[in-house]
This record gives sequence, C-alpha cells and structure tokens, in this order.
Amino acid sequence: MTMGRRLIEDDSDGDGETVQTGVRNRRHSSENHPTDYNIPVTSIDEDMEPAFNVNHRSKEASQYESLDYDVCENVLWRRDQTKIEPKFTVKKDFSRWVISLQIGVFTALVACCINIVIEEVSRVKYGFLKRQVDVNVIRGDLSIPYLWWSLLNLGPVVIGATLVAYVEPVAAGSGIPQVKCYLNGVKVPRIVRIKTLAVKAVGVATSVIGGLAGGKEGPMIHSGAVIAAGISQGKSTTFRRDLKILKHFRDDHEKRDFVVSGAAAGVAAAFGAPIGGTLFSLEEAASFWNQSLIWRTFFASIISSFTLNIILSAYHGLSSFRYRGLFNLGEFAPLPFEYFELPIFMLMGVFGGCTGAVWNALNSRLNKFRSHAIKPRWAKVLEAAFVAVLGATFACIMAYTINDCKPLGNDPTEHPVQLFCQDNEYNAAAALWFQTPEATVKALFHDPPGSHKILTLAVFVIIYYPLSCITYGLSVSLGIFIPTLLIGAAWGRLTASFMVLAFPASSAFVAPGKYALIGAAAQLGGVVRMTLSLSVIILETTGNIGFILPIMLTLMCAKWCGDYFNEGIYDTQIKSSRVPMLPWHVEPEYQQLSARHIMARPVVCVRVEEKVQYLLDILKNTTHNGFPVIEDGDDGSRVNGRLIGLILRSQLVVILKRSFYQESSRFWESTVSIEAFREEYPRYPAVDELHVNEDKCSGDFSVNMSMFMNPSPYSVEEGTSVPRLFQLFRALGLRHLMVVSSENRVRGIITRKDFLKHH
Amino acid sequence: MTMGRRLIEDDSDGDGETVQTGVRNRRHSSENHPTDYNIPVTSIDEDMEPAFNVNHRSKEASQYESLDYDVCENVLWRRDQTKIEPKFTVKKDFSRWVISLQIGVFTALVACCINIVIEEVSRVKYGFLKRQVDVNVIRGDLSIPYLWWSLLNLGPVVIGATLVAYVEPVAAGSGIPQVKCYLNGVKVPRIVRIKTLAVKAVGVATSVIGGLAGGKEGPMIHSGAVIAAGISQGKSTTFRRDLKILKHFRDDHEKRDFVVSGAAAGVAAAFGAPIGGTLFSLEEAASFWNQSLIWRTFFASIISSFTLNIILSAYHGLSSFRYRGLFNLGEFAPLPFEYFELPIFMLMGVFGGCTGAVWNALNSRLNKFRSHAIKPRWAKVLEAAFVAVLGATFACIMAYTINDCKPLGNDPTEHPVQLFCQDNEYNAAAALWFQTPEATVKALFHDPPGSHKILTLAVFVIIYYPLSCITYGLSVSLGIFIPTLLIGAAWGRLTASFMVLAFPASSAFVAPGKYALIGAAAQLGGVVRMTLSLSVIILETTGNIGFILPIMLTLMCAKWCGDYFNEGIYDTQIKSSRVPMLPWHVEPEYQQLSARHIMARPVVCVRVEEKVQYLLDILKNTTHNGFPVIEDGDDGSRVNGRLIGLILRSQLVVILKRSFYQESSRFWESTVSIEAFREEYPRYPAVDELHVNEDKCSGDFSVNMSMFMNPSPYSVEEGTSVPRLFQLFRALGLRHLMVVSSENRVRGIITRKDFLKHH
Repeated sequence: MTMGRRLIEDDSDGDGETVQTGVRNRRHSSENHPTDYNIPVTSIDEDMEPAFNVNHRSKEASQYESLDYDVCENVLWRRDQTKIEPKFTVKKDFSRWVISLQIGVFTALVACCINIVIEEVSRVKYGFLKRQVDVNVIRGDLSIPYLWWSLLNLGPVVIGATLVAYVEPVAAGSGIPQVKCYLNGVKVPRIVRIKTLAVKAVGVATSVIGGLAGGKEGPMIHSGAVIAAGISQGKSTTFRRDLKILKHFRDDHEKRDFVVSGAAAGVAAAFGAPIGGTLFSLEEAASFWNQSLIWRTFFASIISSFTLNIILSAYHGLSSFRYRGLFNLGEFAPLPFEYFELPIFMLMGVFGGCTGAVWNALNSRLNKFRSHAIKPRWAKVLEAAFVAVLGATFACIMAYTINDCKPLGNDPTEHPVQLFCQDNEYNAAAALWFQTPEATVKALFHDPPGSHKILTLAVFVIIYYPLSCITYGLSVSLGIFIPTLLIGAAWGRLTASFMVLAFPASSAFVAPGKYALIGAAAQLGGVVRMTLSLSVIILETTGNIGFILPIMLTLMCAKWCGDYFNEGIYDTQIKSSRVPMLPWHVEPEYQQLSARHIMARPVVCVRVEEKVQYLLDILKNTTHNGFPVIEDGDDGSRVNGRLIGLILRSQLVVILKRSFYQESSRFWESTVSIEAFREEYPRYPAVDELHVNEDKCSGDFSVNMSMFMNPSPYSVEEGTSVPRLFQLFRALGLRHLMVVSSENRVRGIITRKDFLKHH
Repeated sequence: MTMGRRLIEDDSDGDGETVQTGVRNRRHSSENHPTDYNIPVTSIDEDMEPAFNVNHRSKEASQYESLDYDVCENVLWRRDQTKIEPKFTVKKDFSRWVISLQIGVFTALVACCINIVIEEVSRVKYGFLKRQVDVNVIRGDLSIPYLWWSLLNLGPVVIGATLVAYVEPVAAGSGIPQVKCYLNGVKVPRIVRIKTLAVKAVGVATSVIGGLAGGKEGPMIHSGAVIAAGISQGKSTTFRRDLKILKHFRDDHEKRDFVVSGAAAGVAAAFGAPIGGTLFSLEEAASFWNQSLIWRTFFASIISSFTLNIILSAYHGLSSFRYRGLFNLGEFAPLPFEYFELPIFMLMGVFGGCTGAVWNALNSRLNKFRSHAIKPRWAKVLEAAFVAVLGATFACIMAYTINDCKPLGNDPTEHPVQLFCQDNEYNAAAALWFQTPEATVKALFHDPPGSHKILTLAVFVIIYYPLSCITYGLSVSLGIFIPTLLIGAAWGRLTASFMVLAFPASSAFVAPGKYALIGAAAQLGGVVRMTLSLSVIILETTGNIGFILPIMLTLMCAKWCGDYFNEGIYDTQIKSSRVPMLPWHVEPEYQQLSARHIMARPVVCVRVEEKVQYLLDILKNTTHNGFPVIEDGDDGSRVNGRLIGLILRSQLVVILKRSFYQESSRFWESTVSIEAFREEYPRYPAVDELHVNEDKCSGDFSVNMSMFMNPSPYSVEEGTSVPRLFQLFRALGLRHLMVVSSENRVRGIITRKDFLKHH
C-alpha cells in the first residue's frame, strides 16, 4: 500500500478543531461517497497548553493492549440476542457453573501431577545424596557428594531454564504479576495459552527438583488461570482444535471472569485455601466483581481444593481427607499467646516489612541490571545453572562446616545426614538443605525447641536471603511464597531463641514454632503486601484460627512499614516491565487535569459509510485499536463530525477479511453474522495478512459501519476532570473513552496508557 | 407561592421534543434574561410506544432517595481542592485510618455493654425462675413459675417494643436489610442516627432478656454502621453538637465508605469474625470497593474484635484472649469426617434450603398481613407482648410435659431444673428454654451424645420454627442468626440421632455436635443465602478449619436449593418494603429496552442563569432531586438546550437559603464557599422552610449556576441499551443519569427508580 499519505494539519483558527491543509488525495471520488481521506497524525494546537511532554503510544507500552471488557452491543449482537430463547439464558448460566466445576477439577489435577512428580523425584534425589554423603564421609572425601549435588541441581534447572528461555519466556517467574495484569484488563501476550501452561508445569517441577530457592505456589495460580481460559473457550489455537461449543463465551469479558475463578482455584489448590483463593482474586481484581462471579469463583475454589484433597489423600493412602493443599504448614496445636507478646509480634511485623522492602529493592535492581546485561537466551540458561550450583555450594559449605548435632528421632526430617556427628545423631544444619524448601518451612514451624543452634539459623538466613533474591528473576518458573516464608520462619525462630536467652523465664510461653509462624507472616507481608487474602491463606494453611489476631496485626504492621519504602514485589515487577496497569487511584499529578489535557488527538475517525481503501490505509498506517465512527461533518469531511459509534481494529480486520462490504447500494446483510467475529477470536489476523482484491480496494466498495460499530461508546465532555473519568474508566474496565465537545463532536480519545504517561 | 402554573405540553410534531403550548407566564421579562418559565409536568408523545404503563415516582418509592455517591466537582469544590496542600492529603488519609480505629473501638464497646447487660440480667432471671420452679414443684403448683416467667418476659419486651414503636420504628428488626440498602446507595431515612443506635441497643437487650426468639448479632451490625456514620462526621444533629472537625468527610461518598467499615466491625464484634465481617460488607456492597477501603475495613474489624476480646476477657477474668466474639459457638475438637458423609451433608443442605425457603415465604406473608392488620403503635406493642408470653407458655408446656431426665454433670447448662426428675437428674427439655437462645445453641453443639431425647428435640423444632417466624417482624430489635442456628442445630442433632437409630454401626463417627453444626449452617444458609461470608463467619466462630469443606458444600447446596424457591430473607424484606435497591443485574424484561424507554421525561431543566422565582417554583412544585443545567435553547426557551451540568435540589436550597444570588451584574462570588454546603449536610432544609425575601423573588435577582453545578454529569445517548446504562449506573453508584440526543440536548433523566418500575 502506498496510498496512505500523511497530511499535516494545522489548527490555525485556534479553537481546538483541526482543519485540514495540504493536498487531499482524491481518487475515484463520487457524489454520494466522497472518498477524500486523510489520516491525521499530528497537530499543532495553539490554545491548549500541553500539560506534559506528550508521547503517545511509547514503544514499551505498545506491546500491551487492553482487553475488551466492554460488550459491543452492535446490531449483530442484538440480532443474536433476540434469537436466543429464555431457556438459553438459563443454559448459559448453567454452563458457567459447569465450567467453574471443570476449572476446579482440572486445576487440582495439574497441581497434583506437579506435586507428585516433585515429591517422588526429590525423595530419590535426597536419598541418593544422603547415601553419597554417608559413604564418602567415611572415606574423608566430601567433594564427591558436592559434585553429585551440583550435578543433580544442574540437570533439572538447565532443562527448565532452556524451556522457559527458548520456548515460552512468559512462563518465567511466578506468573502472579502477569495474572494480576490480565485481571486488571491488560492483554499480556501469550499469558493464557496452553503452551505457556505446559512450559510452566514442567518448568516449576524441574526448578523445585533442582533445589532452587523457590516454590510451586505462584505458578499454580498462573496454571489455574490458563486452565480457566482454555476450558471456557472450547477451543485451542495451539492445538488447532475447535470443539464448536461455548461460542457465547468467546469474548474478553466472559474469558476474564473465568480467569478470575481459575486464579482462585489455583490458590485453593496450592494452599488448600478456598476462601483465601477467592479473596486473592478479589483483592487483585475488585473493580470487576459481582455477586454471582464471587459465588462461581468460590465454587471453583471449593471444587479445586476438594479434588486435590481426594487425589492426594488417596495417593498417600490416607483414609480421610487430611491433605488439604499442596502446601500445608501442618496443623498447629492451639497457640496461646499473652497480651504482652502482641507488641513483640508487631515489632516483628515492622522488621519483616523492612527486610521485605529491602528484598524488593534489591530484587528489582538486580532484575534491571539483568535485563540489560543478560540478553542472549543461552546466557539466561547459564545464569540459572550458575545459581543452581551456587545453592549446592552454599548447602555443602554449611553442612560441612557447622557442627550442629542433634539426637535422632526428634526432627521429622526424612533424610537425616550424620556427617561428623556421633551415631544416633544427625546434622541439623544439613537437614535444612536436605529436603525441598517446603519441607524445611514445615520443619521450622514444628521442630521442638532447641532443634537448631542459633548459629545454624543465623547463617541460614544470611545465605538464603540473598540467594532467594538472586533466584527470583531467573529464566525459570518459580514462586516466592516458600523462600520468603522460609527466611521469615528462620529469623522468627531465631527471635524466639534470643528471647529465651535474654529472658530465661520467658521459655514457658515462647514456643519457637509460634515465632517462626509470625516471622514467616511478617516476611511474606513485607514482600508481597497483601493483607486480607494473606491472612486467610495463612489461617487456612495453619488451621489455627485462634492465632488469627496476632497474624493480622503482624501483617498490617509489615504492610504499613513496607509501603513506607516501596511497593509490593508484584507491583514493582509490573511497574518495571512497563505494563500499563491501572492503579486504584489516579496519580496525584493528574488530579488537577481534565480530559483535554491527557487525551490523544487528533483522532483517526471513520464515517458510517467508508471506502475499503481508506480502512486498509488506517489499519496499516496507524497502530490504533479503536476508531470513532462519526456522522459526516458539516463540510462533509471527517473532522468535526458527531460521535455515533466506535469500531475496533479487530472488527475492521474481520470485515475486510470476510468481505463484508458493499458495492454501491447492494448489500448482502443477511449473510453477516456475529459468528464470523467469534470464530476469529482471540487471534485476529494482522492487517498485512489480509488479501483484499485490488478491484475492491480501488473500486466503489465501501463498508457500512452501522451494523458493526458499538452504537453507544462511553464518552465524556472535554472539561471532565481526570479523577472523574479515571473512575469511569476503571469501574467499567474500558478500553477506549471518547472525548467530545459539548456538541458531541469528537475531540480526542483516551486509552489506559494516557493515565500513565509518566512511566 | 402561587405563581407556578403548570403548563400542558404537547409533542405535536412527533419528534420527541416537547414544544410548549398554553399560556406563558411573563413577568419582569427583560431582553437579557427572559423569564418565561414553565414546569413541564406531562407530555403526550406519539412516536414512542410506551413500553410500560409508566408511573414515575410512585408514592411508595418516593420516601427513599439515593445517596450522592458521585462527587460534585463544581467550581467551589475545585477551588477548595487547589487550596489544600499535599500535606493535607496525607493528613486526610491518616484521619481515615484513625476514624477506622475509633469505629472498631466504639463498636466493640457498645457490643460489650449490650452483652454484659444481657448476660447478667439473664443469669438473675433464670436463677430466680429455677428457684421458683424448684420451690413450687414441691408444692405441686406450677402455675406460679409460669406466671413469673410470663411476667419476666413481658416486662422487658414491652419496654423494648414501646421504644421501637413510639421513638424510632426504623430500629425494628435486625437492621441488616437497612444497612444493605444504605450500602447499595439508598438513603433510608434516620438509619444512621444516634437516636436509632440508642433505641437499637436498649431494644435488643430487652428483647433478648425478654426471651424472644432472636439474637443480638444483626443489631450489632446496624450499631456498627451508626457508630461509623456518627464518628466520621464529627457532628451530631441529634445532640446539636458540631465538633468542627472532619468537615472534609461530610458527603455521602465518604460517609458510606465509613459505614462499610462500621458494618464489618459490627460483624467482627458480634461473631469474633474480622475476616467474615470484611467479607460480609464486601458481599453486600461489592460494587463500590477499592483496595484501600478493603484494608481500612479489615483494620476496623480487627480492632473491633481485638477490643471486644480484651474487655470481655478482662470482665470474665481470663488471663489470655479467649473471648473472641459476642457469639462464640465454642471451640470444636477436630471434627473428622468420612467421604460418604459428604452426600449426607449435602442432603442436609438441601433440606435446610427448603425449610429456609418456607420460613422466608411464611415470614414475608406474615409481615405483609401484619403491615395491614396491625397499624396502631399500641397494637404493635401488644403483639410483641403476646409473643413474649407465648414463648413462656410453650416453654412451660414443654418443660412440664416432656419427661426427659438426664443425670446432672454432663450438660453444661447453668440452671439445671429438676422438675419431676429424680435427685441428681435434671430435665433436659426445660434446659433448652432455661437460658438465652445463644446458650442453647452452644449446648446443642457441645452436649455429649444422648443428652436429649428424640421427642424433646422434635417438639422443640416444631415449636421454635413457627415461633421464630412470628417473632421476626415484631416491633422489636432482634436478629435472626441465633434462632435460625438454633432450629438448624436442633434438627441437625435429630438427624444424628435418627442415623444412629437406623444404622447402629454409624455411632462410631456420627457425632451429634458435628451434625448440629451442619444443620445450623444449612438452616442459616437457607434463610439468609450468603455463602462466602457465612462460611467464613462459621469458620471463625467455630475455630475449626478442618471442617470448612463440609460447611461450604452444605451452604452451597442450601443456597442453590433455596434460590430455586425464593430470595434470601433480607432481599425479601427489602423487596416488600419497596426500597429501590438496585439488583446485581438488570431484570430480564429490561434487556431489550433502551434509555428512551425507561427515562423520565420531560425533564425540568434550569438555565445557567436562572431567576430566583423560577427556582422556588420548581423546588415547590416538583419532587425531583436533580435538575439538568442547559445552555439556552436555539429559541431561547428551556427546552432543547444542550446539557452542560447538573444541579441538585439540596444545592439549590442552600443557594436560596444563603442568598447566593445576584442582582443584574453584581455578584459577590468571593463570599461563596463550599463550606456553606458542608455545614448543611446531611439535613438540608425543606423548601418550605426557606424565607426568601419577596423583593428578591419578584425582582431581577437570579442565580448563576456555573459555579455550583456539577459541570460533567454522566450522560448517555438515548439509544443506549438498558443493560449497558445499568452497568454504568451501578458501577459508579449514580443518582442521576442524563439522557441526551446525539447533539447533546437533554431528552430525559434516569434515576434508580426507573430500573424498578415493575415493583
């Protein structure tokens, strides 16, 4: 296409309306359908002080588009609605519940598979290493177990890192920030594809088996989201299969609702916390809730934790449901606490908030450096391999040098290593490393007092804190719940030991497990900064409701303290990846502005009846995703027309692909159906892939928008304050908001990026 | 005022625009300010098929107005905003947290007072009755204890009923439906006044002491809401005190946010369930949430349960925090359950859903009858007195006739009555009645197996079910949580007994307490139909997290089953009281309509510059609460003007009261401030109370709206579909939504009542 010439416009009369100057490209013009088209690209506007150095559609942001949460109630949609019977509505609602059920079941199944693989392989791995240590410590050569250990870490991690780096980079990390963005209304590319799920599942299993400082809980949430998106659509583009069912759920609105349930089901499976899961989804996506969605989400969560419970209980040969979640902190005996302990807990919360904030700051700087320094894929794999060996190295150094011998039989560790200890004793320092991080957390919560030396714990914290910080951000699938809990539990237990040392009388009530739990909560609160959902998750995971008050106070303190310094790790990640996620409130510097200050302008508009050639031009020469549809302006041009609708790029592409256009007056309206649009969802072809007949481009063919466009797009007057329109934008999850004059003439357009120019 | 003549309008040209016919009332007209005014009252519109027999502002609905959740960003507000420093924003946010703290503390204090009074007086009452029974059963004359019992029920109930009937009728019932309406955005008159709180607190204490089948939990939630509203405003109109602080929180938006926290704090205090409380507020008001509100609400809930915990623990002389809530089901020992019990629990859920639905249907029919039949206040008091005596009568009949003797020492009842039993035995049937309903619930949960005969429980259920149904709806302050739990617990225990009878082998695992709990959950779920918050409340109240899965399944089944028949009791009550509460989704019959079908029209508009006289006229002759502000129409008349703003009745009243108007061109703009409007909030004077100088009415005095009006009211095009604009209306909590033509000319106005015409 070479026809789309850009015209320079000048607002010479200074009234804010763009008047075209320059050459108009007239070809094939006719009386009825004037084809003079122009794509306004820039304008100089005298009467408006630019509030900012406006730089629309910056490169970083442009890879992220918004979801279309707003239902386009065009003529096709209405026609489709009138066709459906009342029975269909009931059926549709019923399918929603059935899908929620499936989401719960499949999320649990995936969780079980990952869990069983990790458990079995880890058992073999650490059993083998223990035997190696036992054999070689007698020979006096400890380098052989070290090498074995390094190798056993290296192998799985390299597999996982290669998968993530070469096959699906979006599967890296915990996936929670990405899910959070998706729920906020940002289309993160490839986030809910089956391929991503596969890489994530294999990746998380290999990373945990490889002994990296990470957990499988975050990835479970992401898995739940993918499963939900997949099940609700009844088709997979990866597998090129279309089950021809559930077509009515093929839009962003319905899909996102299911993803909410999927994420909740993921949490429910990961922690055995159905309420916590529902709350997690809620705390992150509260602006798009309604009661029936809450209930369906809750249902999916229940089903998920129930299914997991049955499968894992059966697998472990338990007669009744004991296996509540993948991660179980273990039932605590009732934890009594005294009045005067509350200030201590709050101080621990403050400490956790501070160390969490430092962790976040370090991690984000590290990842910034990493994104510049480590760009090739092989380098990413190499880095992960290095960290895997580093873990084994630290573990060996600690195990070999710290002589923390405890009698056998007290500690529930599965692979007690004797090392240099007496017979009937085991090395407690080695025990911290000779199992998955998850098992170590449990040990720190439940080991009897005096199971660990102060030195052991102190060294462990000092090693694990930076290690986990380095690990999160590698090109592997891993969550941070477990390592964070582990650090917190370790320093919490340390606190208890110090207290008993300082005030021997306090040993009566200072249970180390209690302090480990508080420490873990404080550290986790300091890093992720969730309060309500986190309280509930911890509550459900520990099964100790009497202890909820101290945990809530600790989390509150951790959050307040951490928020003083920086944001939670997920928000930090989102900010640094420049995803245009809408915050809860508009930023302070926007408070005093109005729509006209932030809107993008001039706007590329289309008329109700528009030439195919013009449409192709605007699709190819702009990156806009929505085009206001206008009545012809008073002078018959495309500026200054009254807003009557909105048409999306994706709709135009489908219209052109399917040749839904007319020659002169002939129009085969009856053949057009909303199905055509549903079939292309969600991967609409790019405009370059369209093969439009040259004849039709150059001829009198035109598209009548009236049946495709959204006939009532949301619009605001140009004087509307930004906080006000932000509220509208956020509450309705909009993608485009039209700005109009008091006469309803299009003045500008606002998308989510316009609220975030400063980033 | 005699000037406001109503003009009949006729849309003779059939284009939907009203053209004035009839006499125009011209007085004092001038070139610049044409004063021809007219108040359109009715129009005949030919081209529009009326979709319904439209009856705007029906009498029932008109007593309920909407809250102004939308911030009016007029010139005064903006001026106020520019004056505030950045420091002030931080200070304001900090005050929000401080207020949340106070809400928590005061809610807990009120809860403690009510609780202690009830507990102490009940102890004296039942102790006295027990002695009476013991003494008189020997003499063989049981009529004396019956008379005493009736009297001791009668006294307090009459006091409570009199207070409610004569002083503050809005304090009747549980208050939850009213709070729910308030959170939905409906201004229920007098709902958050201190007087209401006082009546509620005294009323609930007297009712529970009087032995009515009710609990204090619902009223606690209402109390929390009142406390929140009171504290956040820094003034009380009841006491005519203005602390001159917190002026910035004096609008409906801020107030409602605090009421959300207050209701949550109320639940937290009532059940010791801070998470449940937060969820309760959330499940009922989810459309107006944001993350910081969640956290403040959670904070208020924690503080509330914490304060209550300390005070009651101290009062009962406990050394550590054991007293988690007013209502505590008592800690259950871990409740193991078997796979095959789940279907039984689900069946119980179905049964609870059915009995709950029947209860709701009976209760709503009874209350419908009651509202017609029992109108005088004295009759209401008499009715309450009758039910109080009825309770005593049933109790006595049961105690005297059923000979359910159990050995002393097993049952934790405080006042065991021997009656006709052997020495060292007590009458288990009497024990059910010889304590507060709350204590009976606890007994049913925790009494060892075999504490009650099947006959006793069966008769108890048969009596209590209709009794509680009659009680809820009396002119007393009472909740339904406890009686519903009681019925459920009784039939749950009965189920366990039947199961053991039918399958003696099942006695190994059929713990009656477990079945009582499931029954209670099922019954409560069937009556109130909350799932998420109820699960959490039960979870927090029983402290048994391992049992959450069966409870959730039971509640889900109860909800589904109950919803098949009717709505939850609160929604039923709201519907029958004709409060215009917006549902979650627009009703099916509105699906196919657009704005033009439901909007109220013609609209009474005002011009930017408007005569005082006209304003007085429209205020007196209409009941509208919002008036679109328009540019002068093309013909200089008030029809057909372009929408440029919205002014509220309350604003106009203040403007007139404070004489914010101008003569000719002179205008004392600088003296006008937003403080004037804040000072009048929330009880704006009625228009009849205004004393406007006759000179000014008849003179050239006019009001310039431009600095008072909301300059960017939300508006939609008249073709917008109702589901779409309902979403807008609900998500933003609007009060008025303007309907405009494609040229932005006012066509109609939509308020919440327009979505509910069928009711």
